[in-house]
Amino acid sequence: MKNVVVRNVERAPADIVRELGEHGVATVHEAQGRTGLLQPYMRPIYSGARIGGSAVTALVHPGDNWMLHVVGEAIRPGDIVVVGLSAANTDGMFGDLLATSYQARGALGLVIDAGVRDVRDLTEMAFPVWSKAISAKGTVKATLGSVNVPVVVAGQIVNPGDVIVADDDGVVVVPRKTAAQVLEAARTRVANEETKRKRLAAGELGLDLYKMREPLARAGLVYVDSLDELE
Amino acid sequence: MKNVVVRNVERAPADIVRELGEHGVATVHEAQGRTGLLQPYMRPIYSGARIGGSAVTALVHPGDNWMLHVVGEAIRPGDIVVVGLSAANTDGMFGDLLATSYQARGALGLVIDAGVRDVRDLTEMAFPVWSKAISAKGTVKATLGSVNVPVVVAGQIVNPGDVIVADDDGVVVVPRKTAAQVLEAARTRVANEETKRKRLAAGELGLDLYKMREPLARAGLVYVDSLDELE
Amino acid sequence: MKNVVVRNVERAPADIVRELGEHGVATVHEAQGRTGLLQPYMRPIYSGARIGGSAVTALVHPGDNWMLHVVGEAIRPGDIVVVGLSAANTDGMFGDLLATSYQARGALGLVIDAGVRDVRDLTEMAFPVWSKAISAKGTVKATLGSVNVPVVVAGQIVNPGDVIVADDDGVVVVPRKTAAQVLEAARTRVANEETKRKRLAAGELGLDLYKMREPLARAGLVYVDSLDELE
Amino acid sequence: MKNVVVRNVERAPADIVRELGEHGVATVHEAQGRTGLLQPYMRPIYSGARIGGSAVTALVHPGDNWMLHVVGEAIRPGDIVVVGLSAANTDGMFGDLLATSYQARGALGLVIDAGVRDVRDLTEMAFPVWSKAISAKGTVKATLGSVNVPVVVAGQIVNPGDVIVADDDGVVVVPRKTAAQVLEAARTRVANEETKRKRLAAGELGLDLYKMREPLARAGLVYVDSLDELE
Amino acid sequence: MKNVVVRNVERAPADIVRELGEHGVATVHEAQGRTGLLQPYMRPIYSGARIGGSAVTALVHPGDNWMLHVVGEAIRPGDIVVVGLSAANTDGMFGDLLATSYQARGALGLVIDAGVRDVRDLTEMAFPVWSKAISAKGTVKATLGSVNVPVVVAGQIVNPGDVIVADDDGVVVVPRKTAAQVLEAARTRVANEETKRKRLAAGELGLDLYKMREPLARAGLVYVDSLDELE
Amino acid sequence: MKNVVVRNVERAPADIVRELGEHGVATVHEAQGRTGLLQPYMRPIYSGARIGGSAVTALVHPGDNWMLHVVGEAIRPGDIVVVGLSAANTDGMFGDLLATSYQARGALGLVIDAGVRDVRDLTEMAFPVWSKAISAKGTVKATLGSVNVPVVVAGQIVNPGDVIVADDDGVVVVPRKTAAQVLEAARTRVANEETKRKRLAAGELGLDLYKMREPLARAGLVYVDSLDELE
Repeated sequence: MKNVVVRNVERAPADIVRELGEHGVATVHEAQGRTGLLQPYMRPIYSGARIGGSAVTALVHPGDNWMLHVVGEAIRPGDIVVVGLSAANTDGMFGDLLATSYQARGALGLVIDAGVRDVRDLTEMAFPVWSKAISAKGTVKATLGSVNVPVVVAGQIVNPGDVIVADDDGVVVVPRKTAAQVLEAARTRVANEETKRKRLAAGELGLDLYKMREPLARAGLVYVDSLDELE
Repeated sequence: MKNVVVRNVERAPADIVRELGEHGVATVHEAQGRTGLLQPYMRPIYSGARIGGSAVTALVHPGDNWMLHVVGEAIRPGDIVVVGLSAANTDGMFGDLLATSYQARGALGLVIDAGVRDVRDLTEMAFPVWSKAISAKGTVKATLGSVNVPVVVAGQIVNPGDVIVADDDGVVVVPRKTAAQVLEAARTRVANEETKRKRLAAGELGLDLYKMREPLARAGLVYVDSLDELE
Repeated sequence: MKNVVVRNVERAPADIVRELGEHGVATVHEAQGRTGLLQPYMRPIYSGARIGGSAVTALVHPGDNWMLHVVGEAIRPGDIVVVGLSAANTDGMFGDLLATSYQARGALGLVIDAGVRDVRDLTEMAFPVWSKAISAKGTVKATLGSVNVPVVVAGQIVNPGDVIVADDDGVVVVPRKTAAQVLEAARTRVANEETKRKRLAAGELGLDLYKMREPLARAGLVYVDSLDELE
Repeated sequence: MKNVVVRNVERAPADIVRELGEHGVATVHEAQGRTGLLQPYMRPIYSGARIGGSAVTALVHPGDNWMLHVVGEAIRPGDIVVVGLSAANTDGMFGDLLATSYQARGALGLVIDAGVRDVRDLTEMAFPVWSKAISAKGTVKATLGSVNVPVVVAGQIVNPGDVIVADDDGVVVVPRKTAAQVLEAARTRVANEETKRKRLAAGELGLDLYKMREPLARAGLVYVDSLDELE
Repeated sequence: MKNVVVRNVERAPADIVRELGEHGVATVHEAQGRTGLLQPYMRPIYSGARIGGSAVTALVHPGDNWMLHVVGEAIRPGDIVVVGLSAANTDGMFGDLLATSYQARGALGLVIDAGVRDVRDLTEMAFPVWSKAISAKGTVKATLGSVNVPVVVAGQIVNPGDVIVADDDGVVVVPRKTAAQVLEAARTRVANEETKRKRLAAGELGLDLYKMREPLARAGLVYVDSLDELE
Repeated sequence: MKNVVVRNVERAPADIVRELGEHGVATVHEAQGRTGLLQPYMRPIYSGARIGGSAVTALVHPGDNWMLHVVGEAIRPGDIVVVGLSAANTDGMFGDLLATSYQARGALGLVIDAGVRDVRDLTEMAFPVWSKAISAKGTVKATLGSVNVPVVVAGQIVNPGDVIVADDDGVVVVPRKTAAQVLEAARTRVANEETKRKRLAAGELGLDLYKMREPLARAGLVYVDSLDELE
């Protein structure tokens, strides 16, 4: 396979990307039919961050972060750098110097299927990272990878220009072409939930709110006073 | 196996349950002879919470949170919902809507051998959860489970009405019938520790405080100035 | 193997140890040629601590913390207790009483290839611990181990008197004899990074700062406008 | 909790137990509604064994196999010894001497949520074991556990006298009281499968055999010649 | 995302596919520049099988094997069925009935990022499977997935029609378009190795055969009689 | 740290090494007081091999097998090559060509804390390997390590010249200096076991053979006919 840098990345409209980010991972994941979620081993290095951005991608090799410098040139304000690995790895491929550079170019954060380091500095800089591990293990710059090709990250395919949403619940990818329609579904979902939240807060049971009693009975659920009744 | 909801749950006296909670997991676990501790993969979604409550239980299937609505009706103030799975799973079976409902019913928290989501909201609501994972992966409502039957959670059997204590150190289950006697043992332990803490803080060695020098010597421990003496 | 306590531990000069600690794990790990890093499963129980100290070591058996009392006598101000296990284990071998004692003797923290408990107390005491797990599982005091012998901790050999640096990025060990020379390399590295950080913050690309364009081209990296060009 | 040995174990009829064993794990697991399967980390130490027997149980502590001698007295011909642990452990708690004893007493095999050793000898003796690990790590005989109490093994509750079926696919537990009815369901399932196997072997598609085409279409499955049709 | 079945799959020439299979995973992986290897958790259910075939793919959901029947219709002789999951799962999604059907259609084997069962039957049928787990856990047929779309399997993207090679060393995917050129490289590699094997078997050192002494010295490797020389 | 090759390795007498190998891992591990066992993730690539030999060691970096050629020159007949990694790794660092060379030099096998490949060839050659993983992932030859320095392998320190025993139960290391005394203890243990095996095979209970009834009663073990007696 040739090692390439693809210059052109088509992105979704900025307002759509931003609003998807505001809805958060759980809502967006539901809104696109429970697809696109990265595996749950991807965790934020600090709590409370929630971002939505367009993916610029890098495909790199274990223990080699050369391409993380190359992808820097591809960053546009509002982007999220997404890094896939050619084989499983937990080395600390990214630290505060690269974060300084990415932030200066307008990147909102990083999603990497490997390790990061300098996490105290990254936290102070408010540069959020979702990663597989935290590790100080350093890397070399010896082997080419690629930039802005499709990558596999924590079990999902991410294409350059796809929308990435990340928060404390994890990371979800939305294909660029369906971003508008997923946003529409997310809005509907949020509106629906508001009413429900109020009724549940007032003590109404989900059993009644969602009209579950009849289907539960039909499925065969039995109420007893004690397990002894079943003998 | 029939899918049942058991209506009657006998609980331990409220003051016993509350005081067990105040002692915390490490103390209660010691007080009942180092038994009852859930496996350490059960972690709190945020730091600092410490609760004690009576278990209402749900047995559910991977990727299906239907019974988490059914168990809602069983909650009494001071309860902790405890969820066992029929097979290993990390899906996000519980989120802010269910938490709103549980909290309105008086639940103190959740212990679930699977994943949760909306962790930022749960943190803001101060609704503590101990779980195996954090994951936005949504679930369906298609298959029956049971409510208030004995469940296996992270390697321990939890019966409805058992006392659950959970804090930053993990989760421990105390059988309802022995709760009073475990509490007594916990009180004794805490009283003993207070004196020891002061003496250790003053610089006294555990070796002397616990009178270990003689048994160590008897067991054969040798003091040398350097490893070379052993050659 | 005999069970011994070695009384004499030669330590590196205090100012060298302290300054290594200030540089942090990632810098020190790089400064000694990317060696000495403990495996990344070793995590701090709370964020933000950064320490450098001299290792006093204990070799213990799973579920038995007897030697953690014996090692207490060996602590000198500025030391870090480093605990290796004879077999993999996650039990909570260390809690607030031992921490009270260690802190009173001047220990800066603990590195243990097993579990710890009372983490809320440890956090309030500001006694940092890097461990494999958090677990309330209690231990016995029945089997001898050794104190101040070489131990394996998370994949690295730690000799008594070696320098330990630990922070949010993990734990690194520096052999006592090379501590001065590693410190020199760390200082050089930090000085170099300061300039780079400023240029990157100003928007200069790593590609240019590190003069990577020519070697990347030589290695065969190809720039295209779209992947279709490659067909 | 008191440490007890329960002398009386009620077992299911021998012919039912034996026939359940012959049907194997996958069939029996299906026949009881996909419940009762131990987690898949339980693996046989050699391939090809398939057994069905009545459970005699032991609850033991990590690194301590004292109770494995106590349970020996409880074995009746046709039994399977089932060992639960009070905390996760991989030590080699069982070897060829215990196997010699168990086999002499009529045991058909062992299911243990920990490690075993002497696997070459056990293989030569044709004494099958399903375990979490293979490890030569030896154990002590110091702490009491219990015999013939309910135990948790790899996520399932096993009561003394329950039926255990184990083969290359894993281990399943059938409650004693429902053994006859599960066997009935297993027989029906096997009879049904025989016809299907022949038709599938003859090249008939599952799509047609199971009449899936219509429900698939109703669920919305679309057939296209190429993904480009969807743009 | 729409759920689709793509009817047309372009395959590489049969003789190229077959010969790639004969070269085995290690050789083919090297021949395409150390890319395309599935993660090493993918293991064969029995030793000794080595196959090469064209991928027909299925994207399925955890615990639901409906699409494994749909993909059956897509199998042509010489194909290998490759199954990706929408989320991590170890359920036993495939057993002897499906294997009977696939084998009747000409499939050479299965690669699945989940569990399989009936492994004794599959072994007797000589139908090889590479999977993430062995588990008897049964599945439902309730949710649509897709057939012959690109899937992620154990960290690699597999497109329908790609060449799959699998043996005791694991599984590697070769993009259809580069299959001929990878085969060429594999042949060259094998030819080279034959000579080397003979010289190494005769006792010649790799150090000399590969002319490593000079580069090792240049890189700074030092020969000493004992570590004490270094002090 | 300097990268060195140490030429002189003192080995234990050949007959002692060989006889330790014949006793196997479980016996030797017990004979030296339950120490020296490598973690149980180290597994043989095929069943049935049992070897004892003197360690020649290599310290290598993840994904780089250069030093595995350098260590080849250090092999003497009866040696076992033992490879430690500077960081966790599962790449396939060793295959049939290196095995051909090692075998030609008289090596009995390999113990490596990483992955291996060509396992079918290695099995046919009867060259046994104990490893952390099987993986076809290839490696480079770019970074120096060391030969015949102390290494950490799966949690144990191995010094050049130490005795290694490996079989289906795992791998144990015996320090060179204590080899004779460990052998003596192993012989005693084996002699003792023979008598016990016969008595156990004749149906005598371990309870009686080991005179456990009295200590069990003293420790508080209670015999009941049913759990109901305890209420």
